Amino acid sequence: MTADPVAHRRHPRRTGGGIPQLPFRTLTNPFTPLEVLSADHVEDIHRTSLRILEEVGVEVLGDRAVDKLVAAGATVDRSNRRVRLDGALVEELIATAPPEFTLHARNPERNVVLGGRHLVFSSVGGPAFVTDLDRGRRAGTWQDFQDYVALISTLNVIHQEAGGPLEPTDLPVETRHLDEYGCLATTLDKTWHCLGTGATVVEDALEIVELARGVSREELLERPSLITIINTNSPLRLDGAMSEGLIAMAEAGQAVVATPFTLAGAMTPVTLAAAIAQQNAEALVCVALTQIVRCGAPVVYGAFTSNVDMRTGSPAFGTPEYVKGAIASGQMARRYRLPWRSSNATASSVVDAQAAYESEMAVWGAMMGGVNLLYQGAGWLEGGLTASYEKLIVDAEILQMMSEVLQPVVVDEASLGLDAIAEVGPGGHFFGSAHTLERFETAFYRPILSDWRNYETWADDGALTATQRANRIWKQLLREFVPPPLDQSAAEGIADFVATRKREIERRA
Amino acid sequence: MTADPVAHRRHPRRTGGGIPQLPFRTLTNPFTPLEVLSADHVEDIHRTSLRILEEVGVEVLGDRAVDKLVAAGATVDRSNRRVRLDGALVEELIATAPPEFTLHARNPERNVVLGGRHLVFSSVGGPAFVTDLDRGRRAGTWQDFQDYVALISTLNVIHQEAGGPLEPTDLPVETRHLDEYGCLATTLDKTWHCLGTGATVVEDALEIVELARGVSREELLERPSLITIINTNSPLRLDGAMSEGLIAMAEAGQAVVATPFTLAGAMTPVTLAAAIAQQNAEALVCVALTQIVRCGAPVVYGAFTSNVDMRTGSPAFGTPEYVKGAIASGQMARRYRLPWRSSNATASSVVDAQAAYESEMAVWGAMMGGVNLLYQGAGWLEGGLTASYEKLIVDAEILQMMSEVLQPVVVDEASLGLDAIAEVGPGGHFFGSAHTLERFETAFYRPILSDWRNYETWADDGALTATQRANRIWKQLLREFVPPPLDQSAAEGIADFVATRKREIERRA
Repeated sequence: MTADPVAHRRHPRRTGGGIPQLPFRTLTNPFTPLEVLSADHVEDIHRTSLRILEEVGVEVLGDRAVDKLVAAGATVDRSNRRVRLDGALVEELIATAPPEFTLHARNPERNVVLGGRHLVFSSVGGPAFVTDLDRGRRAGTWQDFQDYVALISTLNVIHQEAGGPLEPTDLPVETRHLDEYGCLATTLDKTWHCLGTGATVVEDALEIVELARGVSREELLERPSLITIINTNSPLRLDGAMSEGLIAMAEAGQAVVATPFTLAGAMTPVTLAAAIAQQNAEALVCVALTQIVRCGAPVVYGAFTSNVDMRTGSPAFGTPEYVKGAIASGQMARRYRLPWRSSNATASSVVDAQAAYESEMAVWGAMMGGVNLLYQGAGWLEGGLTASYEKLIVDAEILQMMSEVLQPVVVDEASLGLDAIAEVGPGGHFFGSAHTLERFETAFYRPILSDWRNYETWADDGALTATQRANRIWKQLLREFVPPPLDQSAAEGIADFVATRKREIERRA
Repeated sequence: MTADPVAHRRHPRRTGGGIPQLPFRTLTNPFTPLEVLSADHVEDIHRTSLRILEEVGVEVLGDRAVDKLVAAGATVDRSNRRVRLDGALVEELIATAPPEFTLHARNPERNVVLGGRHLVFSSVGGPAFVTDLDRGRRAGTWQDFQDYVALISTLNVIHQEAGGPLEPTDLPVETRHLDEYGCLATTLDKTWHCLGTGATVVEDALEIVELARGVSREELLERPSLITIINTNSPLRLDGAMSEGLIAMAEAGQAVVATPFTLAGAMTPVTLAAAIAQQNAEALVCVALTQIVRCGAPVVYGAFTSNVDMRTGSPAFGTPEYVKGAIASGQMARRYRLPWRSSNATASSVVDAQAAYESEMAVWGAMMGGVNLLYQGAGWLEGGLTASYEKLIVDAEILQMMSEVLQPVVVDEASLGLDAIAEVGPGGHFFGSAHTLERFETAFYRPILSDWRNYETWADDGALTATQRANRIWKQLLREFVPPPLDQSAAEGIADFVATRKREIERRA
């Protein structure tokens, strides 16, 4: 990874003095990805997806997207905007997508690589609501937005911000994205997601990230920073704003995560095979469009297949079907040599045992499947409608633990410790042995949140649940937060841009 | 599996009318086991374990065990009861242990196979305390014992009981095991663990299980029912009662789970390699002893390596080190072609997010490592000191979900659903399509505990956490519990035996 010329670090990053954390570090996954589909089944799903694109087609609501697809060889029925692509054409188009690419943060030590064995954790993106134990569930505010982004900044295990953890509903809709981008670009030295809902929000993000990194549009194109989620409206529809966002991102060489959000039973058939086949068709047409716009544009195979509860219609997450759908999606992504995105999701309305076991199901499934981008990695609650302060801390613990599972077991003469075992002998203990004393401080994972004290000590100290302890932890992290250093000129440039653009938009309104 | 001639089922088993459950079913794990050790590292650990047994030796406190080991070729220093075994001797002795065996329940449909790809979930075993939301944490009672065993009986996902979920401290210590066995043999038609603390408690279990199944000692030897945990006192000590229990079980052809309980930093060096090498040495000497007693006796490679918090000395469970230790242990067990036991463990004092994420870590690690017996599968809390009624339900949900992850994804023309996708087309939905209507009732996993309703509905219904809902569920299961059918003569025989033996023991006291 090449150093970014204008990223500065004046002093070491403070990250909540009293709360122990692992350092920021990039991760690779040493495990062979788990498979739930045979090689034949992968091909069956692939062929079904191509038949969906050939025979059924996708409704594309953006004119520019339709024109580009047609110019590349697709056919369109203008009466219903149904675009059909020949299988061979799809395969030809997607072949130019890079299997791996780097996103550049303003601090080059926070750069991330997507693809291959690399693993990136992002925070929650997109909720309208926010919740914590003190204030309850409520509409997101601008203060919440800033506080939540500060926590994302300070939590080292989170590699990347995900496009706004909550909706600051007290800001005007027309200019909200500018305040958000200004906050993200100054509070974080990590990469962050921009919005994908049209060309304007992409253009504003490009301007701001250029100011933050001090790079030109050409440099940004060569060394991209931004990433956004492009959702299809399943089944088989790409809306106008999303298609414009996709085109703007690909034109600028920034990364798109092509993510059908497919709930089996509602937006796809109930069978997992069909859900994956349809998801795959929708993802492939988006991937193809990025490559039509710009050959070699960075793109991630997004997957978000879960199911609805057929009795209530409620979406379910972190279920067995979710896990198998994720692992199958990873297999499809690898078939196309594309980086793969999955999520850390739960349907629970509260930060309880269900929230934890559903999130663990989702995270383990993703990890075992070889995920590259674990989007919604920390903070998601209630099917993604709410960002929870306490869930953010629970998830940070879950992600830290997973990151340690990926570290190798050292086996050598010293670690095998035969001499120490012989010295202590039967019936002794190892607390005072030299072998222990040389290693004990770093031998084991140290948690952020877990309480391992005995029952009496735990009870005497207030008998707090993990969620109640998480409440104390995020408040302490917030109190102790110091933003990462940013050049004064960059900060002023971003503030000026945000102010100018807001005035422009307000004047037009 | 051969049908047991005297097991009877008069009518289908009722299992808590109102609570949805998956049926009782045996499980196999389709996934290639995860590895954290290279093949060379497995051999390094193996060789270190043999050197521990050759050079350091194991302190064996039981006279019969010492004599049997010496007769088989071990040496002993009688001054400190240190038994040393040559590596070649260890390898020769353990080679006769069966890679796979069946345990026979009184209902043959509840038989379980240990080894190979087979996967068995057992309930919590051994806690002194019990807890629930209504009555709090307290010493276990005989009423609790019976209630908890009824829940284990009624929860289909639990294949096997684990030797008493809690200590009925209001019963006399001397005769307690007889009441426990009587309860287990009559309340469960599943297999169950007996105690391994000496020959007498094993002999009583043999008598009771013979009465329950209506088989002779010879038939029981050929088709075993019982299983027990034999713990070493790490480091490197086998106590007298455990060695007598091991011998009695092996003589009767019943299964032993040879389980060193090794907390790195306290009972082993802090390094994972040393902890596994020492655990392996301790497990191997127990496996060897079973085979000396009876060539081909069923034995499971038990592994319970975790670590202590080096700041407080508290044991930690479900940590990254625990997961890697478990997976490494599975690799060692497979090297010796032995069934492998791991656990579902947490250090949390309360049924909260921590309890769930630590349990999920332990369960996923075990499953991915290819575990055969997931002991402590449901109900364990607080480092195993407490059996929780609510945790039992949380774990039953976790295990049900894992059991569904193991089920194959069906990919065929019908499940690929191209016609349904074509029929609905872009922008539609699948709720009413024929493809959905034919399949929706069984398409997705139906939870015991998870609440997927939207926030408003959930809040209007009392805003209960998963733990609070679990409290309602175990009470309903208990209210609706009907014991599985048992021959009147068997029930009377067991009651007579328990009464007679209790009188004998009381007279002697």
